[in-house]
Order: sequence, then C-alpha cells, then structure tokens
Amino acid sequence: MVASSRLFNVEALELEFSNGKRCSFERLVRGGKGLGAVLIVPLLDKETVLLVREYGAGVDRYELGLPKGKLDDGENNVQAANRELKEEIGYGAGRLQFVMSLSLAPSYMEHTIDVMLATELYEEKLAGDEPEELEVVPWKLDDIPALLATGECTEARTIAALYIIREHLK
Amino acid sequence: MVASSRLFNVEALELEFSNGKRCSFERLVRGGKGLGAVLIVPLLDKETVLLVREYGAGVDRYELGLPKGKLDDGENNVQAANRELKEEIGYGAGRLQFVMSLSLAPSYMEHTIDVMLATELYEEKLAGDEPEELEVVPWKLDDIPALLATGECTEARTIAALYIIREHLK
Repeated sequence: MVASSRLFNVEALELEFSNGKRCSFERLVRGGKGLGAVLIVPLLDKETVLLVREYGAGVDRYELGLPKGKLDDGENNVQAANRELKEEIGYGAGRLQFVMSLSLAPSYMEHTIDVMLATELYEEKLAGDEPEELEVVPWKLDDIPALLATGECTEARTIAALYIIREHLK
Repeated sequence: MVASSRLFNVEALELEFSNGKRCSFERLVRGGKGLGAVLIVPLLDKETVLLVREYGAGVDRYELGLPKGKLDDGENNVQAANRELKEEIGYGAGRLQFVMSLSLAPSYMEHTIDVMLATELYEEKLAGDEPEELEVVPWKLDDIPALLATGECTEARTIAALYIIREHLK
C-alpha cells in the first residue's frame, strides 16, 4: 500500500511476465469495505429509461446518467439496486435482473460495477445521502445519440449500459 | 491534496450546494503532467475493428479491448492516437477523427479519454513501452454481444466506444 485516503487506496506491485520481463505497476483498489457497486437501468416502459442529473465532483459539473451506488453492508446487488432506485429516483422495481459487470480501467483500477436491469417500477421514495434532490430525466432508449449530443452524458459506464440494454431488449 | 503516489493524486474538497448544504468530497486527479488520454477505434474495413489482448494489473487478468494510452509531452490527440496504434497494433492511420470525450467516474475522478476513429490503416510498427507483445484480435463491429459473452471484454470505455462508432457509421 503506497498511498491511502478516506475513499482511495493505492497498491504498488511488481510482476514478472511469461517472457521473463519484470514490471512495476500501481493500481487503485476498492476503498472502505470493498463491497462492490451497482449501476441501474430503470425502464419506465419498454422505450423509456429514467436518468438522473447529479453533481459530479470529479468533473466539477452536473452529469446526466444512470442511478448508481455502492453496496451497503449485508446487501446483495439486487437489494442495493432497489435501495438506490428508491433513494435516487423515487421508484422501486418489481423485477431486477443482473446483466453483466463492467470494469472502469482494467489496467489500473480493481473496480467493477454490476449493471442491473430494473422493470415493473412502482413509486416509493427513500431518503438518501445525496446533498440535494436529484432531478429525474426520462429518455427514449432509442435516442442515445441525442443524449450524447447534449454534452451532459459522458460517463462510459452509463453509455455502455444503455447500449447493452437496448441491444438486449431487441 | 490528501494522498499521492507515482500515478495517483487524491484531492479533498468541501462544497456548498445552492440549497446551503455543505458536503466533503474526495476526487482522483490526473497524475503526472495531466495531459489526457486517447482510446482508438481502428477500423481495418467498414465491418472489422482491431482489438488488443493486454494484461490489466487492476483486475489481474487479460482484457480484450481497444488500444489506448496517455498523451506524451507536446502531442495532440491525433498524434498520440497514431503513435499508440503503431506501438500496440502495428498500424498507422491515414485518417483520425475525434468522436467524443468519455469520463470514467464523474463523481470521483477527473479523468476523461478522447475516442478517436482510425481509418485508412497502413502497416507500421513502433516499439512501445508494453512489457510484452500485445495480441491483435480482429472483431466484427456487428457482433458486440458475442464479444461481451467471451467475458474478456468488460471495460465500459471500450464497450461504449464500440457501440458509439457502430451507430455513427450507420
């Protein structure tokens, strides 16, 4: 462990490849309890996905994307997805389906996130830990290019998940 | 700055929202000279994209994805993309087009990467800094679901870029 803060831990490692070459790497490992995370694709109907507009401290602007969050202690990905949905968009889901895990930057981050398809939505609000109410924005799943053209939706994980689900539903 | 290593720097910040609520954040900022990065979509022909199989220290396994890398001093994104192509797949590109910037995790990372579409490929090899020769894997752009089904392609940035380009070319 070469550096750590409240949220981040950095590990250094030295590896030997099968050709005998040795190399030093650094990688970011999950902070806290390392419990994993979920990215939720909430479908209001067969065509409409619900996005949230949320402040992103990393890029210092508002980003339009899918709801997501970390697992709490003792939760599985279905439970975490349903809680995050209720906190961030004010809906629960009658059905939650694991689609696939996405990695962020396999060369230097351990992090992955589980993409969860949420359907059979019903209204239910839970208080979350967000500093302000998130704006919920419905979007047609057919019109991802227009979403990208807004300049507000730049996150690779959201974009990948939207396209994967669109193809999955065809 | 609350933590730093050879590759990573972590900043702590305290923000006040328009509703008066104050919140502490941590974010990962670009290490080194912070010059940005490129993700290249090299098209051998209208249907075939070239992927590389590369060891990912973050996830500790081989990942199948698009070639990418950081900008060197004095390079723009077109120059960096052409150099990375020559180093990683043994081709240069007669044409390089900026498509869009993707963010990784807007809530806690500053990082973005420029997606570059590379066409009119010609063979040219440059020695790179990779510890071993990368395996080049051609893939049909029409068949992203089969790529995801291999379990070897999990990176959100690669998946997002492939779908974006596929739609862009239609």
